[in-house]
Amino acid sequence: MSTTRSAVRAGSYHDSVVLMQLQRSLAALPGVLDAGVVMATPANREVLAASGLDAGAEAGPDDLLIVVKAESEAAAGEALAQVDALLRVRPGATGQDYRPRRLSTAVQQLPAARWVLISVPGRYAADVADEALELGRNVFLYSDNVPVEREAALKRKAREKGLLVLGPDCGTAVLGGTGLGFSNRTRSGRIGLIGASGTGLQAVMSYFDGHEGGISHAIGTGGRDLSSAVGGITASQALDLLRRDEATEVIVLLSKPPAPEVTRRLLAEARAVGKPVIVCFLGAAPPGGGFGDVWFANSLEEAHDYAAVAQVGDRSITGDPEVPPIGFAAGQRWVRGLFSGGTLALETLLCLGAVLTPVFSNIPVSAEQRLSDPLRSQGHAILDLGADEFTVGRLHPMMDFDLRLRRLRQEAADPEVALLLLDVVLGDGAHADPAGELAPAIERAKADARAAGRKLDVAILLIGTAQDPQDQEEQAATLERAGARICRTVGELVEHTLLRVDEIAAALPKPGFPPVPLEAIRATRAVINVGIETFSASLAAQGAEVVQVDWRPPAGGNEKMAALLARMKQ
Amino acid sequence: MSTTRSAVRAGSYHDSVVLMQLQRSLAALPGVLDAGVVMATPANREVLAASGLDAGAEAGPDDLLIVVKAESEAAAGEALAQVDALLRVRPGATGQDYRPRRLSTAVQQLPAARWVLISVPGRYAADVADEALELGRNVFLYSDNVPVEREAALKRKAREKGLLVLGPDCGTAVLGGTGLGFSNRTRSGRIGLIGASGTGLQAVMSYFDGHEGGISHAIGTGGRDLSSAVGGITASQALDLLRRDEATEVIVLLSKPPAPEVTRRLLAEARAVGKPVIVCFLGAAPPGGGFGDVWFANSLEEAHDYAAVAQVGDRSITGDPEVPPIGFAAGQRWVRGLFSGGTLALETLLCLGAVLTPVFSNIPVSAEQRLSDPLRSQGHAILDLGADEFTVGRLHPMMDFDLRLRRLRQEAADPEVALLLLDVVLGDGAHADPAGELAPAIERAKADARAAGRKLDVAILLIGTAQDPQDQEEQAATLERAGARICRTVGELVEHTLLRVDEIAAALPKPGFPPVPLEAIRATRAVINVGIETFSASLAAQGAEVVQVDWRPPAGGNEKMAALLARMKQ
Repeated sequence: MSTTRSAVRAGSYHDSVVLMQLQRSLAALPGVLDAGVVMATPANREVLAASGLDAGAEAGPDDLLIVVKAESEAAAGEALAQVDALLRVRPGATGQDYRPRRLSTAVQQLPAARWVLISVPGRYAADVADEALELGRNVFLYSDNVPVEREAALKRKAREKGLLVLGPDCGTAVLGGTGLGFSNRTRSGRIGLIGASGTGLQAVMSYFDGHEGGISHAIGTGGRDLSSAVGGITASQALDLLRRDEATEVIVLLSKPPAPEVTRRLLAEARAVGKPVIVCFLGAAPPGGGFGDVWFANSLEEAHDYAAVAQVGDRSITGDPEVPPIGFAAGQRWVRGLFSGGTLALETLLCLGAVLTPVFSNIPVSAEQRLSDPLRSQGHAILDLGADEFTVGRLHPMMDFDLRLRRLRQEAADPEVALLLLDVVLGDGAHADPAGELAPAIERAKADARAAGRKLDVAILLIGTAQDPQDQEEQAATLERAGARICRTVGELVEHTLLRVDEIAAALPKPGFPPVPLEAIRATRAVINVGIETFSASLAAQGAEVVQVDWRPPAGGNEKMAALLARMKQ
Repeated sequence: MSTTRSAVRAGSYHDSVVLMQLQRSLAALPGVLDAGVVMATPANREVLAASGLDAGAEAGPDDLLIVVKAESEAAAGEALAQVDALLRVRPGATGQDYRPRRLSTAVQQLPAARWVLISVPGRYAADVADEALELGRNVFLYSDNVPVEREAALKRKAREKGLLVLGPDCGTAVLGGTGLGFSNRTRSGRIGLIGASGTGLQAVMSYFDGHEGGISHAIGTGGRDLSSAVGGITASQALDLLRRDEATEVIVLLSKPPAPEVTRRLLAEARAVGKPVIVCFLGAAPPGGGFGDVWFANSLEEAHDYAAVAQVGDRSITGDPEVPPIGFAAGQRWVRGLFSGGTLALETLLCLGAVLTPVFSNIPVSAEQRLSDPLRSQGHAILDLGADEFTVGRLHPMMDFDLRLRRLRQEAADPEVALLLLDVVLGDGAHADPAGELAPAIERAKADARAAGRKLDVAILLIGTAQDPQDQEEQAATLERAGARICRTVGELVEHTLLRVDEIAAALPKPGFPPVPLEAIRATRAVINVGIETFSASLAAQGAEVVQVDWRPPAGGNEKMAALLARMKQ
């Protein structure tokens, strides 16, 4: 026989460490079989019920619910009678004598602190973070259950001020050797990590243990940073910081799949870093093997492995980035790919679609890429001219160049077109002399563009072997004489394209925000902690100076009273 | 001034090489500016119109439309007058004296031919392929525009007979050194390619040119083989062939993203091959870095690179596959993961979701994975217990083990559960002694299972470093004493899980089909060609014996007449 009894403390706030300790203390009392101490949200109550701790007490999500299952009514009653005494026991953490109740006081007490670590319940966390920003401090926002609009607003404010907001729901950061939140103690090294995933960062950090390399910094951004709503503000700032940080030689960027427009911007920024950047978007289709110094890893372990390799070796994806600028005319801006090989078109589309917009195709990888009329290009366009709709009663474009030559003329006449991409597939079964067909058309198109005051760039992906019936090297030479750049892999073709697009983009204005000072990730030996006290203990154990704020929710967590107070302040 | 005139040949069939030559001949005539010769499909007519070759002639999709743009009416008229004479010119290809009109005659003439290459128009192609299968021949089906239901039916028939159907829309195969369709001449080597993409295969072949390694065979499957409708029948057969082929040491599998259930089956088959298999599903999210000997490449170039590496070195993803069988009870079959780290849960889910079904989660990567009630598991289940819904008013499960221990007891009591996965994340901020919490619970759960006649396997992903405040090695030792397997990376955890699932699956019956005899890819020096004659020329140039069938569509391409003939045959 057992009995279950419960108690409710309406609208009261308690540190969650205190609640965990209360539950453990109750469960350890004589005659008590099990105990549950939770904020009485529906989810938490269901968890209790699943353990046979459903006491049917009336309690709302802001109320503290205490349930005791005991051998007897007497034991249950005695346990519940001790609740208030047990709730008064504070987790001894930092040995700090005086605890300021206000963040502003804490900042006066420890002005060297550039960081405020916030782990109060989600519904209060954004207000505390906002106050920290107003005080000119960077924010490590551990709290979860913060609305995404608040996150976006906080991050926009931080960006204007040259400050960082890591989180909400940020588990991990290691800044200048100091771990905030959850972190592992790793060898110091030259690899900087940025992660929208806390345990992802921790796993990669830990994988370095016992292997080559170590960590310069690890910057958590919170899981939603790379969503459309937030736009990757923190990840961008972090990338820029680690770009400027001399201690960092290789950067690893971890996240769940970002929103497409965020992916495009981050990859463009990553390409411009000038250091190897290992990108691991877990669960996203990687756009090829990499772009220049940007590499794509498929797992946390690969991210680690690639970073270790990048640190010691040079694995730039491309051969020769030394392409002199071509000098396009104003208005020239689109890339048009006319492929005979479906897979070559697809791989090119996957790569370019990850960084350019808008990209259209007759073999789209996302709905918005679909070309409404395959016979007329829009924006950047990658066409598979061997697709079924083009080959009814007609030879494949690897044999018959008629369709491609007509389309080449059409694209070249478009004054907005800057760059034409073509593939040439040699071998048995294919046209006996593709260069003989293409070279005159390319020469003509380039000459026509020149006559119209434009420059037309042409790059050709040449697939073939030295043993193929066509003379591969002669094919290449003929096409080069016509003014085409010869690429041997899709990666080379993409890199050439992106360099040309960079040239076009360089003329456009960029948005400017104040850079985050490097001291944000270097001066980290002093921290203000608001919330879970064991984080103060961890910081102290690492030798950092900590001030723990004795934070209480407005009106002691009583929502009605808090609303009244807020109204009185107005 | 120019004039445009057209002619129509109603319902007539012509080889597309003949049509290309007709167009070129017309365009080269005196006074002719441009010419178009197409089957008058709407798409083809639009292409003509885009080149100013719209003559407004009445013609249906089965009619041949000839358009000439000339300097004068006279020149146009003279050109059109030559059409019939030009159509009679045959492309001289093989120098073959006698051309059988029927496939069965060709098979009698060249009985050594194991392969029939078919490139007739799509609407006739499936019938020819069916006839080839009935004659016991493998089919290389170059033709496109074949309905997918016909493809599936042909492939099911082929599978029953131990034959292969490559295609439809198969561009490429190199079998025993003979290239069918479009192919490149590569060094002979020990790398076998399987591809749902023709030019993808050609690119990878070509990348080997001038590098280490070479090709044993390249087997195109057609672009839709890995769709739900077809189910990857040819890819499965090809994988099994290359598994048995002693000349092949490494296998590369290329495709656009397959249907999820086809991915699962192919990856399971790839894992069982016993040779390194490089998988490149262009545009799909790779499930981690790899499974055992299965590696995931993100681009054609990476596929080549990994194959070259796999051939010389050993890169098995896991450390130790020597896990002795555990001997589960009947009915034990589900894996349940209880994670504190969201990213560790996600990476595990991505990996397991790619090979197991059904997999459920509270952080699903596809809609059908969503767990209807996060508090109750179904099927294989991967849970992130640190997700927002579990952490309102509660410490994170990296600090507070209460939630996880309760769930562990719940899962362990389920008689269908075989394997529990847990993560333990050490470091600052985390629980001071996770093993102290988990080890007793694991011991208890295993003992309870034993008492109930079951075996419960427990694997733990341990993330931490030697410098972390918890003693990492002692944590590992404590958990191992409790009977848990310790893994250090997600890859190791997944591999352990898959080996356990293999053990469960080994007890189940497998569907059996006759294996395709190895001679299908070895005896390739004799081929029957039906359709585009230049393919015969290519085969002859490679030294293969070829019989070109003088194929004509039923009733000479007249659809009404063909329907009448078909009705009379019944």
